[in-house]
Amino acid sequence: TPPPHPGSYTEPDVLCAWVCALRPLFMVPLPSFYRLYYLYNHWIMRTATYFFIFLNLSLAVFEEPAVYPLPFLVTSLVEVLCLLVFFGRLVHFAKVTLRNVFWKDTKNICIMVAILLSLTDLTICGVLRIYNVRSIRWSRIVRPIFLINFAESRQIRRAFRSIRNTLPEITYVFLLFMFSLLMFSLMALKLFGERNLQTAEGMPYFKNYLEIVFDLYVLVTAANSPDVMMPAFDFSSWYALFFIAFVIVNTYIFMSLFLAVVYNNYKKHLKNEIRKLAYMKHRKMIEAFNLLKEEEGAQFVVREARWKQLVKLVAPDTSNSHRELLLRISDDEQKGFIDKKSFVQLADLLNIQVITLKIRSHPLGQWMPRVYKSAASRFLRSMVRHRGFVWTYDIIILINAIFIALDEETPYISYAEWVFLALYIAEILLKVYTYEPRAFFGKNQFWNWFDTLIIFAALTATILNTTLKSTTKYNSQQILDIVFILRVLRLIRIVDSVQRFRVIMNTLINIVPTMLTFGGLTLVVYCIFAIIGMELFYGKIQFFPANSNAPHALECGNPALKDSLFARGKYCKNNFNNFASSFIVLMELTVVNQWHDILCGGSVTVQAAKLYFIAFHIVMVIIIVNIFVSFILEAFFVEYSLEKSEVETAIEQKIQELGMGVQEDELQDEQLLDNMESAEHDLEGEGETKPQSKGLVFKIASKRYRTVDALLQRMFEAEIPLEDEGPSFEEILNLSPATAVPSNLTSESAA
Amino acid sequence: TPPPHPGSYTEPDVLCAWVCALRPLFMVPLPSFYRLYYLYNHWIMRTATYFFIFLNLSLAVFEEPAVYPLPFLVTSLVEVLCLLVFFGRLVHFAKVTLRNVFWKDTKNICIMVAILLSLTDLTICGVLRIYNVRSIRWSRIVRPIFLINFAESRQIRRAFRSIRNTLPEITYVFLLFMFSLLMFSLMALKLFGERNLQTAEGMPYFKNYLEIVFDLYVLVTAANSPDVMMPAFDFSSWYALFFIAFVIVNTYIFMSLFLAVVYNNYKKHLKNEIRKLAYMKHRKMIEAFNLLKEEEGAQFVVREARWKQLVKLVAPDTSNSHRELLLRISDDEQKGFIDKKSFVQLADLLNIQVITLKIRSHPLGQWMPRVYKSAASRFLRSMVRHRGFVWTYDIIILINAIFIALDEETPYISYAEWVFLALYIAEILLKVYTYEPRAFFGKNQFWNWFDTLIIFAALTATILNTTLKSTTKYNSQQILDIVFILRVLRLIRIVDSVQRFRVIMNTLINIVPTMLTFGGLTLVVYCIFAIIGMELFYGKIQFFPANSNAPHALECGNPALKDSLFARGKYCKNNFNNFASSFIVLMELTVVNQWHDILCGGSVTVQAAKLYFIAFHIVMVIIIVNIFVSFILEAFFVEYSLEKSEVETAIEQKIQELGMGVQEDELQDEQLLDNMESAEHDLEGEGETKPQSKGLVFKIASKRYRTVDALLQRMFEAEIPLEDEGPSFEEILNLSPATAVPSNLTSESAA
Repeated sequence: TPPPHPGSYTEPDVLCAWVCALRPLFMVPLPSFYRLYYLYNHWIMRTATYFFIFLNLSLAVFEEPAVYPLPFLVTSLVEVLCLLVFFGRLVHFAKVTLRNVFWKDTKNICIMVAILLSLTDLTICGVLRIYNVRSIRWSRIVRPIFLINFAESRQIRRAFRSIRNTLPEITYVFLLFMFSLLMFSLMALKLFGERNLQTAEGMPYFKNYLEIVFDLYVLVTAANSPDVMMPAFDFSSWYALFFIAFVIVNTYIFMSLFLAVVYNNYKKHLKNEIRKLAYMKHRKMIEAFNLLKEEEGAQFVVREARWKQLVKLVAPDTSNSHRELLLRISDDEQKGFIDKKSFVQLADLLNIQVITLKIRSHPLGQWMPRVYKSAASRFLRSMVRHRGFVWTYDIIILINAIFIALDEETPYISYAEWVFLALYIAEILLKVYTYEPRAFFGKNQFWNWFDTLIIFAALTATILNTTLKSTTKYNSQQILDIVFILRVLRLIRIVDSVQRFRVIMNTLINIVPTMLTFGGLTLVVYCIFAIIGMELFYGKIQFFPANSNAPHALECGNPALKDSLFARGKYCKNNFNNFASSFIVLMELTVVNQWHDILCGGSVTVQAAKLYFIAFHIVMVIIIVNIFVSFILEAFFVEYSLEKSEVETAIEQKIQELGMGVQEDELQDEQLLDNMESAEHDLEGEGETKPQSKGLVFKIASKRYRTVDALLQRMFEAEIPLEDEGPSFEEILNLSPATAVPSNLTSESAA
Repeated sequence: TPPPHPGSYTEPDVLCAWVCALRPLFMVPLPSFYRLYYLYNHWIMRTATYFFIFLNLSLAVFEEPAVYPLPFLVTSLVEVLCLLVFFGRLVHFAKVTLRNVFWKDTKNICIMVAILLSLTDLTICGVLRIYNVRSIRWSRIVRPIFLINFAESRQIRRAFRSIRNTLPEITYVFLLFMFSLLMFSLMALKLFGERNLQTAEGMPYFKNYLEIVFDLYVLVTAANSPDVMMPAFDFSSWYALFFIAFVIVNTYIFMSLFLAVVYNNYKKHLKNEIRKLAYMKHRKMIEAFNLLKEEEGAQFVVREARWKQLVKLVAPDTSNSHRELLLRISDDEQKGFIDKKSFVQLADLLNIQVITLKIRSHPLGQWMPRVYKSAASRFLRSMVRHRGFVWTYDIIILINAIFIALDEETPYISYAEWVFLALYIAEILLKVYTYEPRAFFGKNQFWNWFDTLIIFAALTATILNTTLKSTTKYNSQQILDIVFILRVLRLIRIVDSVQRFRVIMNTLINIVPTMLTFGGLTLVVYCIFAIIGMELFYGKIQFFPANSNAPHALECGNPALKDSLFARGKYCKNNFNNFASSFIVLMELTVVNQWHDILCGGSVTVQAAKLYFIAFHIVMVIIIVNIFVSFILEAFFVEYSLEKSEVETAIEQKIQELGMGVQEDELQDEQLLDNMESAEHDLEGEGETKPQSKGLVFKIASKRYRTVDALLQRMFEAEIPLEDEGPSFEEILNLSPATAVPSNLTSESAA
């Protein structure tokens, strides 16, 4: 099977993936086959697939019950189109995969079944609609399958695999938890059942066993915390002890236990995945070496020319100087060839983000050197580089915050806004004047980009708003909202000037990409539950605007809700009447509080509906939220342990060593850059490398831009003793957990 | 300074402590000094101290505002008595401590200041009372200081130290969190402030900045989750995005971050404490060795006789055979002396709980051998040992559960209860008949004790109730309640018959002792907040029984609460009118839900009171609950990692090796015991050791009875390379984090 395209993988996979790409280069490929293969992996094809997946999912917004209703014909045509695209994609995939591999892969089968089911359902529904019979579009819950199973979303699949592996252990704890819940319920029934107590709403208190179980389940989530206790507590203060024991055992101990189980498995699973990747990488590198090797004296080696050709092929966007640097590291003694050990490290070498910084003088310095290098200009630039400049702007931001809080109806304050905007723009211009613009807007200068974008967006929006106001005499609500938000977001900058806050912020920023995976996971779960919820609870609740005259406006259009907590709390908009509302309700259920009330409203006391909500709670809160928390915990633990003891591979050390060898006086030109660095506070201590070519600086991408995945991989790799020794191919074969799979499956099993 | 008494320490400390005890034995002690010292550490003195500490704390129940009012004179006399006892204890401590050590120790100063403050306050209050002026008893909040600072409660002190060490990091995260909160509040003010929206209660929505901050703070705890969003959401669905972003950032990410910081520090701190203990132990053992050593050939050794004398002195309750076993392990080649390396291990050796099981035939077998060894008796015993016996009783328990759930007013069902009781008693009798009673009720047979106690208590209570019913014609409520609870608790037994549940249950049982520390911690925080709360909010709310005719019964005696959610929810009993109520309210605040409502009631909207509740939330939920969760997480991680890879010290392996050496045929007599073991499922794989003396079996106490602290110590010790190599004294001196302290302080610094 052909190798996946190197560019298509997230960080840890890229190591393995591009090595797979080596093989065909030195064999005789079938050109049409590989053209098909590269087409399959082209970014346009991938983006298109994602587009259709989300289009398919978002159909729920337009289908009955719709947020924006569209005729059935339109939505079904779009759905057919999506299914055709999916089918085409699958056929394309089949063409570039060995037949037996393709048919053995569950995810392909899943997609086919999903397509078939969707088509069948669509046909049935269409036919019934001709005869004006309304039917349930049950196939809509299979739609998230496309999101999970298309090869591109391997992160989500990995998360699902992680959940599946956690299930047995979770089940045991859950059974024990249920046992404890049932036992406490039994006690509650015996203790309170015959007291003829009443709840605050005048309902009988703890009379029915199943209702007690449900009430106590809700108490575990703390959602009905004092309410459920009050009748018994009013009767006798001692009964509070029962509830205290219950909360300690179930809310504190069992819920922590769930987190412990999920976290433990999450870590175990992650470790295993990364171990697999590391083994795979090693193995593929040795395969590649064997393809490229030539005899040199007693040993097999790869010659420099071939090595360069290889690097050019697999990493076409590395610069010449970067390639030279890599060569100097791999071929330490400049013998003109690379031995096996150094060759195997190539994957790691390429994986280190080396930023090539061209030392360029400022463009203004070139265009008008006289002005730029004048005493006034020098003074201005040294001023901007001074720490006091940052502090001054921190104070300006604080003053701005106070002005924002004040009412801007006062004309002076709204004028002040213009002053602040002008100050911020001046700051950016001054910085661009002082620092080299291409360095200032470098790929990794997150905060520079952030500042500039926020301020220019605010400027544009403010101007737009003022124009609108002066022409149409009234503010545009949307633009104003955006201006407000942008104005407040600007304040985030102040966080970046405190070192301790920076560490936390950087970890948070590093987490963002992986959080998208959880977004995907949540989307899948929400979609399924929203579609089921709409079928079950559609139309039970209606929302009327505040001054509506509809008959049961205050009872959410449902007389049964009269005087309920639901109606009194004005929860009418929490309903399952369309896809968007369902999402909001599910979000509220995820946050857990008041979920029993929302439930009462949502279902209007249909007993079976409680099962729906409990199922959602188990899936979303007990499993997914806990995985999310585990992930954040792990990310911070990694960050903390890196803070203390920098985990560095031998290669990084080597790059740094080479960097240290550069004479101090050669670095004069870099003054400008250094200043920028020190203005960034936490880049100190990062090595800088400068080989032969003057005016070029290599810099290992700073910690702050490493992804958490990469950090984790680094940590776990340190625990694999194999990697350091460079074991024989046979050893890896024996040790690898994926060795049972034939060689052409490996790229798949690593996925 | 004299050594602490060996018996007075929890597991990890005992190692260090008893070694401290070695020194005086071989020096010339001042007899009266040591008599004083041992008196100080006598268990009666300790128990008395604890008694007075709790008496002093519980005074709050009897002082105004009181649960059970007592005259001022009585409570103040009791308090003076307590203070005198504390003072006496302190003087006693001063007598057995070096002067400069005593005065340098903050905890002694703390106690003195607390005593002085209490006395001053008491005097002032007494004097004012004579002139009928009511004053605030402000000194009551210093009372928990006695609980923290008396030397016996080192676990609580350690927890406080852990909190103190965590504070700086928590503070940074908290500041960042507050920044995020303030920023979101600013956005909310700008977005919603001028819409003139109203909450469900008709109050202005998001108008006042400080109120927004508070509302959003409550939203972080999810307590007002959908309510706070509804007005904006009703206005425009898009505003829900603001709240979703808020919840993700603050509730999910920041709260996880708090947990991460607390957990990380908890682990770091624990590691450090245990490392200190390990170093200390090593150092003391070498000190002891140097005191006892004699020259033997080229090396210094401790001779057997002296070694035995030592073991007898420091561990007087080990049996002779146990001592022989230890000797055989220490003096492997039976040379008649113990070398330095083996001597140093003695602490670990003694720390391993070796259970000496005497192989005794059943007493019935001795009294009436004919009957006991008859065919019928043999059959009966083999039946009881059979797995089916356990299963049968599991089924009986399940049937019992169903009967409990059914109404016992039906006479047949209440008769069934007697049948079940009889069945359970029969089970216990059968087991005692089959297994050796002393082994059956051994120290570590938790479940046997549990079963027997529960069933006999239930029997007693049921008989008592029946007697009462037949004589006085009505049920005693209290006894019935106890019977119900006991009856349900019996069902726990079923958990113990499933292997997977057992593992979880055992960890939970292991956690219990350490949970008491958290109980103490919680008690301290609750006491302080309860006393402050009573001063601030006393009498604001009143509780009236359901059918009261008092003027504002429905509004909790406070007209301001008319129509409030507080009164509607019947929360009147949630008040600060006495110590017990305050505790319940604080418990409800810990569980977090509805705390803004309780707050509104508690304070009747005094703005400053919000600070009280936020302070409580930060201390209790963000810090203490997170430490508790960290502790449970760590306990389970340790348990899980032990499940996979048994951490065994060299000594345990040696004991097992010796055990393995015993011939199989010698073990015949142990059949009985083996059966008991296998009936316990998880003891398989534990080594059994049987040296010379026939009829005795040594068994390493099973994993299930190890404390979590000991497990942790074992885990961390594995990470300290020092321990395995047995480094020189100087090395330890250089490496130990406690070396700065003079030698006579070490026992203190380890505390």
